[in-house]
Amino acid sequence: MPFLCPDSSSFLFGLKRLADCSAINPMHQVPAIVDGRFKLFESHAILIYICSAFPGVANHWYPSDLSKRAKIHSVLDWHHSNLRRGSAGLVFNIVLAHRDSHHSYPQAVNQAEEILIRSLSKLENFWLKDGRFLVGSSQPSIADISLVCEIMQLELLSEMECNRILSPYKKVVNWIEDTKKATAPHFDEVHDFLFKAQKRIRERMTTEFRKNEMKSKL
Amino acid sequence: MPFLCPDSSSFLFGLKRLADCSAINPMHQVPAIVDGRFKLFESHAILIYICSAFPGVANHWYPSDLSKRAKIHSVLDWHHSNLRRGSAGLVFNIVLAHRDSHHSYPQAVNQAEEILIRSLSKLENFWLKDGRFLVGSSQPSIADISLVCEIMQLELLSEMECNRILSPYKKVVNWIEDTKKATAPHFDEVHDFLFKAQKRIRERMTTEFRKNEMKSKL
Repeated sequence: MPFLCPDSSSFLFGLKRLADCSAINPMHQVPAIVDGRFKLFESHAILIYICSAFPGVANHWYPSDLSKRAKIHSVLDWHHSNLRRGSAGLVFNIVLAHRDSHHSYPQAVNQAEEILIRSLSKLENFWLKDGRFLVGSSQPSIADISLVCEIMQLELLSEMECNRILSPYKKVVNWIEDTKKATAPHFDEVHDFLFKAQKRIRERMTTEFRKNEMKSKL
Repeated sequence: MPFLCPDSSSFLFGLKRLADCSAINPMHQVPAIVDGRFKLFESHAILIYICSAFPGVANHWYPSDLSKRAKIHSVLDWHHSNLRRGSAGLVFNIVLAHRDSHHSYPQAVNQAEEILIRSLSKLENFWLKDGRFLVGSSQPSIADISLVCEIMQLELLSEMECNRILSPYKKVVNWIEDTKKATAPHFDEVHDFLFKAQKRIRERMTTEFRKNEMKSKL
């Protein structure tokens, strides 16, 4: 089975690794794949295509049962306007906008955090209420990979912030660990880039914090 | 074939019409369906489920060919963070927030319009570049229904605003007409609610405009 991680910062799969996919995706975004002459982008579409087009992918990743498959489509669709918007919005406005000198508005940060908290609460109380994995499943699906990878972006915030946001959601925290275990050792492998970025960002944060502390003492 | 319109204001299908779906969808949003004991929400998931679970749905709505199907998933996924966010965001911030006394920030209006214009440009120059319908198809798919219905929300703006936004995109305008024709008479039937709302909103806008004009003369 090809292991997939649809997180845009760390996309690894069995077809081709793309450092720059603008020639493949006219939207200038990752992930994108090339399979022969066929080009495809959008992480969920890619996950579904790989599960459908390649033999040997275990059924639990994208069940052939229509009701189970429909529930997976439902959570993947929900993800776009909820967890993704909250998590990516928060990381963009706190970490990336600052780094890349883009505008970041407090209102945008608050709105993203509000969407994220509401989404984590729905994950805890609805999507994970019936099983270890999403939509009541005992084994992971492509939805677990996609949504856990979205949450993993929060690792770019400070450790304190990341814990403050996630720790109230016990089922979510356990589910992240279960997904990591179910996909080991690939999970850490594809998040290597993220953890390297985390190290740089947290070091910069500490330096800035110390500088400001020194200034306030003087 | 059941005719489907996933627009939340006018959802009609062959299973059940829901005036209040909160008992079916814990996210308290429409659309949502019940098929026997099976409950499902999220418009794209519903469209895919109905095409897959019910016999007699023509293949062009959700092709069985894996590459064609993958392209449909791709445009449906793209839709969430682009056209949907732009169109629904603009209508919410200009029309609905005002009506329901919610906060509406000029920055949010500008951001939504920017996303919408960018999305319409991608529709014109990428998604519609190879055919009358999305992803180079000569017949409509569930993606055409979903995306056209999203654009239909713009009818709640003033006629001038709606024309200003859409008229530069000739292919988009033709595609909307082609989708209307391909789904007639159901298209107008399911948008009846929208056009009734449009009438009320535009009448209120005219009254407010006249009031302000009178005030400025006094």
